[in-house]
Amino acid sequence: MSADKEIELGTELKPKFDENGLIPAIAQDARTGVILMVAYMNKEALDHTIKTGFGTYYSRSRKKLWKKGEQSGFLQKVTQILVDCDQDCIILKVIVDSGQCHNGYQSCFYRALIKGTADQLEFIAEKVFDPSKVYEK
Amino acid sequence: MSADKEIELGTELKPKFDENGLIPAIAQDARTGVILMVAYMNKEALDHTIKTGFGTYYSRSRKKLWKKGEQSGFLQKVTQILVDCDQDCIILKVIVDSGQCHNGYQSCFYRALIKGTADQLEFIAEKVFDPSKVYEK
Repeated sequence: MSADKEIELGTELKPKFDENGLIPAIAQDARTGVILMVAYMNKEALDHTIKTGFGTYYSRSRKKLWKKGEQSGFLQKVTQILVDCDQDCIILKVIVDSGQCHNGYQSCFYRALIKGTADQLEFIAEKVFDPSKVYEK
Repeated sequence: MSADKEIELGTELKPKFDENGLIPAIAQDARTGVILMVAYMNKEALDHTIKTGFGTYYSRSRKKLWKKGEQSGFLQKVTQILVDCDQDCIILKVIVDSGQCHNGYQSCFYRALIKGTADQLEFIAEKVFDPSKVYEK
């Protein structure tokens, strides 16, 4: 197989990190299929996730490894790791106890575009926790 | 509200395109919740998607607008557009007639990491069409 075919149709994980050394990773609720969040991993974060079984990312704002839930306690227990055809994106199928968005929602995707508009959003979810209590510490 | 709060908790779509003018977009099957593919949109692709109701991306390799399915005929009919808290990622909920991966699978995420290994993948899906027939034209 050619190198490209090997990446697309082979059985070796060869994640394609971008020019910043990052790959996007989607956390998807393993039970409901709801997409909870999208974040980025560097190699260390991916290795840490595989090794520990808990969703771990690289925080671009804090410039450091970020074990999801280290502050809130709302960890992501990883049940499966998927990779796409050209290996430039990852899905973590995760089991979570509580909301994953720092704004208090189960998913970061709590708004949808109102049909017939170009830029008007509506909230499609209710908060599942109070972020002022979870993050006040 | 501060500008950051407005982005996170407001009702105006203000997508945060990256330094290359792109935002990642996840196509998720509206009926099954399966994540079909992840691609990138520039402003034109997002506007085109909103206006036409069909998933349209920006092809980074071909450097041009890419209406998904323009070659295969396997279009993505968009039923809902979601945005995440900091508006740097989009989900298209889509209805599709056939496989979305150019390798013949329903989803681009047709491989999973074998548990207990660091880099060994297994195929978790069967092909739903023959790419050599669809793309031979």
